[in-house]
Amino acid sequence: MSERNDLPSNWGRWGADDELGTLNLITDEVRERAAREVRTGRSVSLAVPIQPAPVLSGPFPPRTAEESPVQQMMLYTGSPAIAYADALTVTNHHTLSTHLDALAHIPQDGQVYPGRPANESVTMGGVVHGSTTAFAAGIVTRGILLDFAADGPVPGDRALTAQDLEAAEERFTVHVEPGDALVARFGWVRTRYRGNPMPGMTLDAARWMHERGVSLYAGDLSDAYPPVSSPPAMHGVALPRLGMPLIDAVDADELASVCAELGRYSFLFVAAPPRILGLTGVPVNPVAVF
Amino acid sequence: MSERNDLPSNWGRWGADDELGTLNLITDEVRERAAREVRTGRSVSLAVPIQPAPVLSGPFPPRTAEESPVQQMMLYTGSPAIAYADALTVTNHHTLSTHLDALAHIPQDGQVYPGRPANESVTMGGVVHGSTTAFAAGIVTRGILLDFAADGPVPGDRALTAQDLEAAEERFTVHVEPGDALVARFGWVRTRYRGNPMPGMTLDAARWMHERGVSLYAGDLSDAYPPVSSPPAMHGVALPRLGMPLIDAVDADELASVCAELGRYSFLFVAAPPRILGLTGVPVNPVAVF
Amino acid sequence: MSERNDLPSNWGRWGADDELGTLNLITDEVRERAAREVRTGRSVSLAVPIQPAPVLSGPFPPRTAEESPVQQMMLYTGSPAIAYADALTVTNHHTLSTHLDALAHIPQDGQVYPGRPANESVTMGGVVHGSTTAFAAGIVTRGILLDFAADGPVPGDRALTAQDLEAAEERFTVHVEPGDALVARFGWVRTRYRGNPMPGMTLDAARWMHERGVSLYAGDLSDAYPPVSSPPAMHGVALPRLGMPLIDAVDADELASVCAELGRYSFLFVAAPPRILGLTGVPVNPVAVF
Amino acid sequence: MSERNDLPSNWGRWGADDELGTLNLITDEVRERAAREVRTGRSVSLAVPIQPAPVLSGPFPPRTAEESPVQQMMLYTGSPAIAYADALTVTNHHTLSTHLDALAHIPQDGQVYPGRPANESVTMGGVVHGSTTAFAAGIVTRGILLDFAADGPVPGDRALTAQDLEAAEERFTVHVEPGDALVARFGWVRTRYRGNPMPGMTLDAARWMHERGVSLYAGDLSDAYPPVSSPPAMHGVALPRLGMPLIDAVDADELASVCAELGRYSFLFVAAPPRILGLTGVPVNPVAVF
Repeated sequence: MSERNDLPSNWGRWGADDELGTLNLITDEVRERAAREVRTGRSVSLAVPIQPAPVLSGPFPPRTAEESPVQQMMLYTGSPAIAYADALTVTNHHTLSTHLDALAHIPQDGQVYPGRPANESVTMGGVVHGSTTAFAAGIVTRGILLDFAADGPVPGDRALTAQDLEAAEERFTVHVEPGDALVARFGWVRTRYRGNPMPGMTLDAARWMHERGVSLYAGDLSDAYPPVSSPPAMHGVALPRLGMPLIDAVDADELASVCAELGRYSFLFVAAPPRILGLTGVPVNPVAVF
Repeated sequence: MSERNDLPSNWGRWGADDELGTLNLITDEVRERAAREVRTGRSVSLAVPIQPAPVLSGPFPPRTAEESPVQQMMLYTGSPAIAYADALTVTNHHTLSTHLDALAHIPQDGQVYPGRPANESVTMGGVVHGSTTAFAAGIVTRGILLDFAADGPVPGDRALTAQDLEAAEERFTVHVEPGDALVARFGWVRTRYRGNPMPGMTLDAARWMHERGVSLYAGDLSDAYPPVSSPPAMHGVALPRLGMPLIDAVDADELASVCAELGRYSFLFVAAPPRILGLTGVPVNPVAVF
Repeated sequence: MSERNDLPSNWGRWGADDELGTLNLITDEVRERAAREVRTGRSVSLAVPIQPAPVLSGPFPPRTAEESPVQQMMLYTGSPAIAYADALTVTNHHTLSTHLDALAHIPQDGQVYPGRPANESVTMGGVVHGSTTAFAAGIVTRGILLDFAADGPVPGDRALTAQDLEAAEERFTVHVEPGDALVARFGWVRTRYRGNPMPGMTLDAARWMHERGVSLYAGDLSDAYPPVSSPPAMHGVALPRLGMPLIDAVDADELASVCAELGRYSFLFVAAPPRILGLTGVPVNPVAVF
Repeated sequence: MSERNDLPSNWGRWGADDELGTLNLITDEVRERAAREVRTGRSVSLAVPIQPAPVLSGPFPPRTAEESPVQQMMLYTGSPAIAYADALTVTNHHTLSTHLDALAHIPQDGQVYPGRPANESVTMGGVVHGSTTAFAAGIVTRGILLDFAADGPVPGDRALTAQDLEAAEERFTVHVEPGDALVARFGWVRTRYRGNPMPGMTLDAARWMHERGVSLYAGDLSDAYPPVSSPPAMHGVALPRLGMPLIDAVDADELASVCAELGRYSFLFVAAPPRILGLTGVPVNPVAVF
């Protein structure tokens, strides 16, 4: 219990009914600073492409299928077809899908951010507090890439500390300011989630993000496997206690190339998932504009 | 037939295998110009909020439900729940959902843009040419709002011509340049699609967009109802013949307020739907940054 | 706890790994007796018809929809269509759907029938013990209708006891034998689940079913609302402790008419839902053959 | 055209609005005869078991999955879970699913049985004529197994004629009468639909079924691949022209064993899929009772 009390927290910081969490740190001033990053108009997607699995009923369907977060059903629109249309089944928290976690995705001791009873906030009919509603207007801020994989993937048994984050800042000549979106690259986007050990962030790193005022975390990885703390730093502390939205399964490989090529690791960051309210998470295509 | 030959077309302009259509007009130079629009960091969403319909199985479900483009299923994650997660069923071309039409959404005489056989381009297993794959990197360009509803909704029996578009340019002191995204506001976002007459664009207006080099059209309405031409200007000509992606069901009301307040009708425009390949369309939350 | 010990139970009766529960009572002898009920070949369905809700994406969809346990998507099969096909989204335990509850549907003190840990029996990936797999071969036995609504619907504040069940046996000249399926008619199929009080079975009635060896319960209602016992007799005792499958939302109105017309209340009873393994429940169309 | 005129047809036989097709042949007399087949109460399922594919969102989902006609989503019901529930996505005409084809499943020259315009009978919102509504009361009749695979699977290049059917009748001492359900076993339930040649029925066999008054066809196979006639005998003639419902993907292996053991190839046949109206087809678990 005393350990829990040591964990960083934003519960109460923006009121008992707050739904934005660290997105509160994205002020007009922060956006204006972000805007100044745009100089060339070059843009890069940070999303893993999703190949939907077709729902087929013809005589010779495949017997095995690559698993996908999305199933696609091509719809009948008359014969001959006057248009082509489809419907999808989408799994929001799939590890092969770049998605934005809502604050109520993970409860902590029966509560969700900022300390509301989980059972009242999340119902069988949807999320009533701490949902994707917080992302309705889109997220526009400055992004900073900390490329921990510039010299190769972070080893599976490493967990990054505040010192590692500051070393990266120094190396890439950036400084994380309040309201910034932090993009972390471990170099694991193609090899993660196979059951083997994976690197991640320590509680120490989460504390550093808290102190610096990170508004959003986007990484190809976030928490180490096996866990290096209980609760884990990002999904167990940053999300539910700091109210920091997480983008899971980010592909920052092209971003890293462009940053290296342009010689700068800051950019305008825009994440605007479909404006669907009341979800625990939602697929997103974050875009960096230089 | 001779009439068809008179219709504007980009078939062949960027090659027989092109999938980008008028998005080809968004060059580095265009993006750089778009970037210069960002001065304050203020951002506005152009998407209609979607309240998903819960899929319930409890003892007292509702007997009628507001129709929704999205059904939500809250998922079991263990007991007690270690996380909250959900899965969705999504209808891509629903009139209550702000969505981006892929170029193959509408065929023309058995072909899709840029003249490929529709039956080869669209299959039971998904779209192989002209799909949402074209939007994978996100769309970043300059946006221009033409607010035809500044003095009240456009009447249901009006269809806008090139002259109307130029009058709006003059009134709002903007000039549509090649690569710009054109946002049109008819003032109908809350009242459309009830079966009554609705205003829209004429073929003349589509020709004007072609000549000006509009890269993308985003409107609360697009084609008039009942139709004022065959094929209709936006879904029958701009989309399949010009290869111009359309964003349907845009909510430009807040955008119009901000433009009026700031006294300028151009902005950085970002549309980055989930990076799901092979679809006929996809929900999107377009964001304008000033 | 001493009260719990008083509750009837079949845990252990057919072994620690049993998945059939009271379906074990349907022996060859029972089936043979059931077969003798068939004299005329007249057959009656006991299922409520389900009108699926269409998933539409056309320009003028309805704004509200009758809620349905089933959503239907008409599928594209080529243009022109070479066949018509569809896909469904189905909610298994919907109150507007006649469905068969699997034994693991309701846990009791963290266990499912016959005393196995719920968390091992039911997983995020499906039910591994106590699922619809038990119904794979179909259920064929003798059915007995006890029509408690022959003189009008059972009042909302009534809960039926063993005495009521025996009175019905006497009135309709039937005798429930081991292995029989018990069909109960409260006369509520059109008016249930509106939030108002509803009649149901008492624990005393569940004990009677246990003693008589009922193999399956099928009713338009089962447990009273508000509850008259804790746990409730059918979903809290018969299902998880006796291992008695329940068919919810039965329409026994036509059955009652036919029984009255033929002057007999026993029949061959067949329930054979789609052979989908690992579910918590499944829609079913029970058929009575006279 | 003259060839088409030679095809057997029931269009008009039971009126222009008929939806039952050959199910009209199942009279009270037929059911009574069927009932007489029940002597032992032994019952056998004719359905292929379906293992649903889980929709998972945990950290370590599988990367490939066996394809399945059914996706299962385990639903959240509170924490701790007060019940276990699930929702399904079901593809009706999947080759790995035993399913009942509705009469409007296959059009013929722009019409569906019994000669109604296909475009009016099948809409984007569901089937309004010739749907699963015809199966609402369940199908109860006499079943006859013709086991063409008693000496091993029918070779891939064989197509069965009326003579083959009569030879089987003689061998198994059965005689198909009006209203009977015909169960055909080719011995292919485990090996079909891999792209290689498969046996099936000839037009001659379909004519024989018409003359004999078969009410329903249930087989592990039906039409040969590659096709041996145009239109194919069962899906192109029996279904749309005779109005004969087809059960695809039947598993008759256990049925054949039981028939051989009991020395009789006739039985009570019950097929009662979920009572969902307006579909093109529906999963079913046909049951034979001896």
